[in-house]
Amino acid sequence: MKQDGMTYAPKTKPNPVVKPGEFVFSALALDHGHIYGMCNGLVEAGATLKYVYDPDPEKVKQFLTTFPQATAAASKEEVLRDADTQLIAAAAVTNLRCPLGIEVLHAGKDYFTDKAPLTTLEQLAQAKDAVKHTGKKYMVYYSERIHNEGAVFAGELIAQNAVGRVLQVIGLGPHRLNAKNRPDWFFVKEQYGGILCDIGSHQIEQFLYYTGAKDAQVLASQVKNYAHPQYPELEDFGDAMLLADNGSTNYFRVDWFTPDGLRTWGDGRTMILGTEGYIEIRKYIDVATDSTQGDLVILVNKAGEQRFVVSGQVGFPFFGALILDCVHRTEYAMTQEHAFKAAELCVRAQMQAQAGK
Amino acid sequence: MKQDGMTYAPKTKPNPVVKPGEFVFSALALDHGHIYGMCNGLVEAGATLKYVYDPDPEKVKQFLTTFPQATAAASKEEVLRDADTQLIAAAAVTNLRCPLGIEVLHAGKDYFTDKAPLTTLEQLAQAKDAVKHTGKKYMVYYSERIHNEGAVFAGELIAQNAVGRVLQVIGLGPHRLNAKNRPDWFFVKEQYGGILCDIGSHQIEQFLYYTGAKDAQVLASQVKNYAHPQYPELEDFGDAMLLADNGSTNYFRVDWFTPDGLRTWGDGRTMILGTEGYIEIRKYIDVATDSTQGDLVILVNKAGEQRFVVSGQVGFPFFGALILDCVHRTEYAMTQEHAFKAAELCVRAQMQAQAGK
Repeated sequence: MKQDGMTYAPKTKPNPVVKPGEFVFSALALDHGHIYGMCNGLVEAGATLKYVYDPDPEKVKQFLTTFPQATAAASKEEVLRDADTQLIAAAAVTNLRCPLGIEVLHAGKDYFTDKAPLTTLEQLAQAKDAVKHTGKKYMVYYSERIHNEGAVFAGELIAQNAVGRVLQVIGLGPHRLNAKNRPDWFFVKEQYGGILCDIGSHQIEQFLYYTGAKDAQVLASQVKNYAHPQYPELEDFGDAMLLADNGSTNYFRVDWFTPDGLRTWGDGRTMILGTEGYIEIRKYIDVATDSTQGDLVILVNKAGEQRFVVSGQVGFPFFGALILDCVHRTEYAMTQEHAFKAAELCVRAQMQAQAGK
Repeated sequence: MKQDGMTYAPKTKPNPVVKPGEFVFSALALDHGHIYGMCNGLVEAGATLKYVYDPDPEKVKQFLTTFPQATAAASKEEVLRDADTQLIAAAAVTNLRCPLGIEVLHAGKDYFTDKAPLTTLEQLAQAKDAVKHTGKKYMVYYSERIHNEGAVFAGELIAQNAVGRVLQVIGLGPHRLNAKNRPDWFFVKEQYGGILCDIGSHQIEQFLYYTGAKDAQVLASQVKNYAHPQYPELEDFGDAMLLADNGSTNYFRVDWFTPDGLRTWGDGRTMILGTEGYIEIRKYIDVATDSTQGDLVILVNKAGEQRFVVSGQVGFPFFGALILDCVHRTEYAMTQEHAFKAAELCVRAQMQAQAGK
């Protein structure tokens, strides 16, 4: 089976921020394979995985082979009622992520959902309302940044002022389709939310993060089904240009055209242009070299051209920070505003593209 | 002095298509250093350089050190009246390229101008009119494709169907500013035409060429002066999204932010996405590697990941084809329609960005 990104679950050295049993979470809704990366990230950061539940016993059985420490719960309600569980990690079908999240928040737990965290502006309003009324967190697994060491390291370089002011972020997010291994909902627009909402959400989150923008407008966006008439609701291509409130800009392209001959599921790139230099991240592969690693970060500034392969070097600080944020009610891992703004903009990019068709 | 692209004049093995004296050209207007690349390309393809003229004797003197075979003419008129000269190569100040071209055409000679070939839609209409009435050619030195072996080779791969149907072209055209070595007109908007018109013209030409599109619309475009308030009419950043008549799309970014630490004047890239694979061209440098060469073409398709360093391998067929086109009144090097369409779209992208400011 060719890699398709659905099973992407990077590992690093465990770096627990809490002792066993100090922070307990459970997993609900195993529809997207990202649940493995989400749970693994939390476990490596010291969280204790208690329950798992999904209506499909096969998915639960599979999950337990990777996480034998978990217990299969009898129902969603059993998990939601569990007093030990402080956070629910979930990777539901995309358009069901918000209703599930609202249930989780009202059950008094923080929510950590796969991206995209919601698919409509109505859901966004409901999610914001639930956060406001419960005081709980609705956090998002924007894996292409928080679970990629190259992406994390690039953030550190920017924070160290290695490229001056960030003017623009370009993101390329090609993915392998692997249609035969995809669930039915993957091809139903209402369910997966459209390509800009789905895999575009990673890109917009990175843009906001690297530029420090609080808001942005979508200048242009498009979606296409260029070459998959057998899946009429699939969008195999999407792109967008955004302009942030702080003047920085963004372009991103996402697509399902990764060729079979590529050694990984996608040649994801991020190009960050600053006033004093630029960064390129080759996230999953340094294509057409002997290297089998991704996490290559290239930095060019007045000091010259530098190359950093950071696999195993920087880890994934998001997960420990998220646990501590849940414990201390802080926002170091990611602010709620940021998580929702990225979600909002990907829905707006999607809507604008649909309106323009 | 740091390389700035203005003196970029690639060389290859001479490959004459005519015998000495069979095709004679002269050079007029040496305002942009591209004139060196233009003349060298023609000479390598067998053309005979006769006259050179520029009002600035220093520029002529400098030119003659590189092309000692040329004769300094006493005036522009002497060159235009010369019966031997079949084609005039010229790199005037950008907004003067069209008036000069019209003179050249009406003098009964073909015109080969540096890009951008014109700066307004009014000039475009005048140029088209002159071509129509004289039957002469108004050809353009879109050097970032026709004078880059990586770019030429990518075109050959596409023609061989290596990536299927081309869906999208992304072009990144960063340039080193080197402000102290630039002439005054470089910082006067009316004269250089704006960044999308100037260095953006390369990008739009490549898009049309690689996708085979005949026309396109500008979906969005922007220009910025992010970091050079001392040059208020400089645009140090520009980008645009285009949609072609055949459904393929384009995004390009051009900027003047090449850091001092880069070993060349710009890390130009072209990313070509097809239904069956993709191509990346690292045009002038394989950044942060030991390689000192550009012309790296990466091809990924079902056969795997391949890497071609094509410096000295494919040459620059444009120049020989242009000479033969002039001799035989054919259009193999580049059609007039294509040259003008690229010019038109870069003016439109520029206008749309200005209107949107």
